[in-house]
Amino acid sequence: MVVYMNFTEKCEHLISEMKNDGRYRTFIELERLAGDFPTALRYKPDGSKEPVTVWCSNDYLGMGQHPAVLTAMHETLDQCGAGTGGTRNISGTNKQHVDLESELASLHHKESGLIFTSGWISNLAALGTLGHIFPDCVIFSDALNHNSMIEGIRRSGAEKYIFRHNDYAHLDELMKQVDPARPKIVAFESVYSMDGDIAPIKEICDVADKYNALTYLDEVHAVGLYGPHGGGIAERDGLSDRLTIIEGTLAKAFGVMGGYITGPKALIDVIRSLASSFIFSTSLPPYVAAGALAAIKHIRKHPEGREKQAYNVKILKKKMQDAGIPVLDTETHILPVIVGDAHLCRQLTDKLLDEYNIYVQPINYPTVPKGQERMRVTVTPYHTEDDMDLLINSFLKIDKNINWIPKK
Amino acid sequence: MVVYMNFTEKCEHLISEMKNDGRYRTFIELERLAGDFPTALRYKPDGSKEPVTVWCSNDYLGMGQHPAVLTAMHETLDQCGAGTGGTRNISGTNKQHVDLESELASLHHKESGLIFTSGWISNLAALGTLGHIFPDCVIFSDALNHNSMIEGIRRSGAEKYIFRHNDYAHLDELMKQVDPARPKIVAFESVYSMDGDIAPIKEICDVADKYNALTYLDEVHAVGLYGPHGGGIAERDGLSDRLTIIEGTLAKAFGVMGGYITGPKALIDVIRSLASSFIFSTSLPPYVAAGALAAIKHIRKHPEGREKQAYNVKILKKKMQDAGIPVLDTETHILPVIVGDAHLCRQLTDKLLDEYNIYVQPINYPTVPKGQERMRVTVTPYHTEDDMDLLINSFLKIDKNINWIPKK
Ligand SMILES: Cc1ncc(COP(=O)(O)O)c(C=O)c1O
Ligand SMILES: Cc1ncc(COP(=O)(O)O)c(C=O)c1O
Repeated sequence: MVVYMNFTEKCEHLISEMKNDGRYRTFIELERLAGDFPTALRYKPDGSKEPVTVWCSNDYLGMGQHPAVLTAMHETLDQCGAGTGGTRNISGTNKQHVDLESELASLHHKESGLIFTSGWISNLAALGTLGHIFPDCVIFSDALNHNSMIEGIRRSGAEKYIFRHNDYAHLDELMKQVDPARPKIVAFESVYSMDGDIAPIKEICDVADKYNALTYLDEVHAVGLYGPHGGGIAERDGLSDRLTIIEGTLAKAFGVMGGYITGPKALIDVIRSLASSFIFSTSLPPYVAAGALAAIKHIRKHPEGREKQAYNVKILKKKMQDAGIPVLDTETHILPVIVGDAHLCRQLTDKLLDEYNIYVQPINYPTVPKGQERMRVTVTPYHTEDDMDLLINSFLKIDKNINWIPKK
Repeated sequence: MVVYMNFTEKCEHLISEMKNDGRYRTFIELERLAGDFPTALRYKPDGSKEPVTVWCSNDYLGMGQHPAVLTAMHETLDQCGAGTGGTRNISGTNKQHVDLESELASLHHKESGLIFTSGWISNLAALGTLGHIFPDCVIFSDALNHNSMIEGIRRSGAEKYIFRHNDYAHLDELMKQVDPARPKIVAFESVYSMDGDIAPIKEICDVADKYNALTYLDEVHAVGLYGPHGGGIAERDGLSDRLTIIEGTLAKAFGVMGGYITGPKALIDVIRSLASSFIFSTSLPPYVAAGALAAIKHIRKHPEGREKQAYNVKILKKKMQDAGIPVLDTETHILPVIVGDAHLCRQLTDKLLDEYNIYVQPINYPTVPKGQERMRVTVTPYHTEDDMDLLINSFLKIDKNINWIPKK
């Protein structure tokens, strides 16, 4: 089997290249502990286990352990079983899906909602379909858009223009150059997950309107966290009706798994009818939909969780700044601590984990550009001030050894 | 908002086209009843509900209601919570994933396993990556391959040749024409879900070997059902080691949700490291992995479920043939009843549902070619002979009205 050998050799070569670059990823094996979040058990390579404090979870509000969510899931699991056994069209549409879809539409002030097995698929399906069905469509995409949006745009086959990150003047420049008769989509995010900055939604929508474009907003890192009902940045800023489609995930602040889009009835119906990644895949289990619904209902009524989280973010950032930790001064809950080198970043987080039982995942290329390697710290309502002090003291102690903090 | 109007108009136009063609899909809303499978509650458009017998589920063995599965899931839900809160790399790898991946590798006699949020994603990720990393790669794809494999091949950017369904002589002809030095992949399924036929795996592998190609087998509709341990057709026929990669789902015979690949360590590691649909998406919840693991462990040890299913398939097919129902004489558990017209097919299944509380989803274009519209009947270990007689009598009664059975 000559080629088989070639395949294996080629793969081994790719792996050693990644190892040399510091890009090779070794997954940290955890056991989450519902009730003790953000503590989890870490399974070490030698088979032993040890509790660690998780500082890099996107279960931003700890809804993954919330009794309202778990109760709904246990009940639905007992009532309806472990899976749907079908695609949405072939015996896989359940009452729980329908209920969740109408809740999501209402959360985002839209006519219709549609759920997917992940946020990743929701972007692939929605952008892949919209960009495809309008002949001659042009998609304008923010330079820092998430991989799933990029994949959706690529899948659509539409012509793509990339505008500089959050730069609506550049967007305007690009749109001006395109034939006014061609259908246009502007695709962007509200909260960018690696830098923690927020898009100028209003200004981008103003430009989009000027050229009669459809607007597509990914609120994956904002839903549940911002706005009076946790509807995201668009809700917070009273801009929901400026967006044609709002996309989100059920797997971050809502604590479960799955993704969704909301928007005008006819558009959602076309995506439902034509997106192959939606049509040809088993639907989300009923208890997942029920858990997400319970989380959303809870969050809509209870701002306390996100208030406490926002408070903790403020405290931790202040503590970091006071200690001279190189944290980006973001306007969101995401606290990127810049290290700037893949090997150093990994060395630092290895030490945090092995010596201090603190888990922050190093973020390296391709998730961020080379030279911008970082620790992306997230704080939840369940992290205490003691946790924060421990984190910062560990940063400082390690600095004595490996000198990772830039000195003025 | 001119273009917004254009978008809406265009979508409305597409929808009415689909309605005219009989291609527009209205999802039947169900509430599954764990313990009463294959009975489910149907929510009617008028808001009332009624029990129906489901004859089109891919929860082939009813594992979705199995106590071993549900118990494992309840326990893990309590212990670990509702979601992972991260991608596999960023705090989203859990003990349950690691355990499931090694079980899957062992089930298919492979070195490594890797799980995904769905079978759809597993094909996109694996074929999309493999076809991409080998410069100048050529992929040979069976004409009836599933949409997710087609999407993966397309995503890879590799050159593609389509061989006639299950026709290994044609495969040979095509492979012969390609430069022997180019890396080659042969991608096919074991059980084809819409026709219920089985690929000549040995012969296809013989051809692939002749040209030193990597072999990629989708066993989505076979895992859990065939082979001494439910490892699929390759296991049944002692051919596992002829396949480089075996792909499957956790959402059909295993009753839960998710997908996976198994294969040589270096190849799986490269897919893990490079597939963006894997990297950039929240991982499967721990209780989903735990439920799937429990299902697989049960199935490996207990052939009774699949034996009873196979027995029921035989009985039902015999009954259908005796009654003159146009069922394809497949060698698998899938019983396609050919109708051949989209509108007639829908009329028939509407009547079954509304008048007889029998749910079989009509399968229309694009899932099957036009003119081959069908009811795809699946029978589980939990369907009784009474259920079968009711199904057949309903077919016959409706035939008196709308004359859908071809008469000799
Ligand atoms: C901006 C953005 N969109 C979409 C996704 C995908 O969502 P999911 O994890 O539900 O697949 C992610 C990350 O996971 C993301 O960061
Ligand atoms: C042959 C085949 N492969 C892959 C899939 C996708 O699997 P999943 O439902 O887990 O996404 C399906 C159907 O759903 C299928 O029929």
